[in-house]
Amino acid sequence: MTTIALDAMGGDHGVSVVVPAALQILEAQPSLRLILVGDEPTLKQQLQNTSADKLGDRLVLRHASQQVEMGESPAQALRTKKDSSMRVAINLVKEGIAEACVSAGNTGALMATARFVLKTLPSISRPAIIAQLPTIKPGITVRVLDLGANVDSTSQQLFEFAVMASALVSAVDNKERPTVGLLNIGEEDIKGNEQVKKAAQLLSNNPGINYIGYVEGDSIYKGVADIVVCDGFVGNVMLKSSEGIARMIVQYLKDAFHANLFSKIVGACALPVMKKVKQQIDPARYNGASFIGLRGTVIKSHGGADIPGYVNAIREAMLAAERDVPRRIADQVSLLLARN
Amino acid sequence: MTTIALDAMGGDHGVSVVVPAALQILEAQPSLRLILVGDEPTLKQQLQNTSADKLGDRLVLRHASQQVEMGESPAQALRTKKDSSMRVAINLVKEGIAEACVSAGNTGALMATARFVLKTLPSISRPAIIAQLPTIKPGITVRVLDLGANVDSTSQQLFEFAVMASALVSAVDNKERPTVGLLNIGEEDIKGNEQVKKAAQLLSNNPGINYIGYVEGDSIYKGVADIVVCDGFVGNVMLKSSEGIARMIVQYLKDAFHANLFSKIVGACALPVMKKVKQQIDPARYNGASFIGLRGTVIKSHGGADIPGYVNAIREAMLAAERDVPRRIADQVSLLLARN
Repeated sequence: MTTIALDAMGGDHGVSVVVPAALQILEAQPSLRLILVGDEPTLKQQLQNTSADKLGDRLVLRHASQQVEMGESPAQALRTKKDSSMRVAINLVKEGIAEACVSAGNTGALMATARFVLKTLPSISRPAIIAQLPTIKPGITVRVLDLGANVDSTSQQLFEFAVMASALVSAVDNKERPTVGLLNIGEEDIKGNEQVKKAAQLLSNNPGINYIGYVEGDSIYKGVADIVVCDGFVGNVMLKSSEGIARMIVQYLKDAFHANLFSKIVGACALPVMKKVKQQIDPARYNGASFIGLRGTVIKSHGGADIPGYVNAIREAMLAAERDVPRRIADQVSLLLARN
Repeated sequence: MTTIALDAMGGDHGVSVVVPAALQILEAQPSLRLILVGDEPTLKQQLQNTSADKLGDRLVLRHASQQVEMGESPAQALRTKKDSSMRVAINLVKEGIAEACVSAGNTGALMATARFVLKTLPSISRPAIIAQLPTIKPGITVRVLDLGANVDSTSQQLFEFAVMASALVSAVDNKERPTVGLLNIGEEDIKGNEQVKKAAQLLSNNPGINYIGYVEGDSIYKGVADIVVCDGFVGNVMLKSSEGIARMIVQYLKDAFHANLFSKIVGACALPVMKKVKQQIDPARYNGASFIGLRGTVIKSHGGADIPGYVNAIREAMLAAERDVPRRIADQVSLLLARN
């Protein structure tokens, strides 16, 4: 049995997404147990007339009297929301009652609370956010980090990101020696800032990392590396601008198919094709970013995730818990950082 | 008459793109004069059996014995390629023989040579690269800088980028007070690195800039600002990753339409719609990045640009020359930087 705590109040949709997603994945995964953390009356109401009764102790409620707001500052959430659904879900991981937790709430508050409650792994300067993105190669994804937990990452931090991500990918994707690329603005040695150049040296000199060199922005989606490492400011802009242009293209397609009667008819016929492509680039499919470098597993769902998206985030948490990712990262870190 | 020098040897395709593009735009623009800079025999051969003879002195050849290679280091190009087509084209701007120049060659070498020959404008720390991108709003574009000329931009440099871009946009797009957003990883005041936070203060305090606040990666393509300012490392990654994901989506669409006989038939019917969308996001349509902050106009065409793309780059150079952009930037800079 794997037990996962869900911050049921977090995200744009709260219980109306988290509860149906929980019921859906519990049906599919008989060895999964979920703890819904949040306002108990609200949770009970949401569970009325559902299959919840038949699940017995595989679905447990845990009351939390507070809720972290989306716009709240991390410091304020830490100080004043000690009984928030987010904090209680993380506490359950700390206490060993849950093996992982999932939240769609305020990213900054989630990271600050996770660091405060769970603590960072030994020898790791800062945790990072890592997520999966599609590539042009069918079925092949790339994991990119950091996506916004850190700004001004040092070369040592970039190196640590590579070590942690290698451990994660080898654990959850069963890849023996995942390839690591370093995001830069050119492939030549002279390109980039000092942090990136020094990180390249650290990575090249460490045989424990399967480092393949610099990767440019457009190559992320070519699937040239299993892992792409970058500073959190750069990674966050990369991820969000990619989302922005993808949404723009989908909008252009919709508008073009609605332009006239002929294009509308073609559009109706093309619907299955469009659906397939939309599914391939659907953020829901890749929902569930991991906070790595902590002494416990915390998965961040997109704030606006729908039910299938949230199900994917829970699945990501299950996988990390089953494969014992934090311990494997800790092992890898003590092995590889010792060599530096 | 506007005279523009073209580095005819630069880019992946050299004369086979530059010469036809030159002939095409000369036909459309009777007040344009072009100087083709490059290896004279090669140019003459490329001009055989074309309409070039009828153009008289509106098409002039200028021999240059060398050529900067795509992989060459900027320092080496500066030192050893004093008679390259790139260098000579920039010299023509310096000497006042041409009002602007266009090159599809090595970006680093072009920037280094342009800075060395033309010099940076007074009070400007570093030139920047600015280009136009499409937005979700039909017909509305956004200009983003810096796209890779600088790394580790200071708050003062980010401020200067905003001043220069405002002058450019008001000159070429006829916008009185273009809106300026600062790229960040969140819209709240506490987000971002020190450079960005300080730049936000400089921009807020200067009434000469129409500053609208922080803009996140996905909002670039929403058309929320006329100008988005960022460090060159961040901007370069943003631009290239956007290109990468756009290319991936186009590939997914192609594959989906080729999946079976039915989808192939639908695909054939959908061709005009797809063409329209492809054109909307086509990099050729937005080809021609400006190097701003120099005492002269240099336009960088994408290395792989096709003929219509290169025509757009020449058009961008014409516009900048006709509107006297470098002088207008210099005026704006002396006006606004004095206030700081």
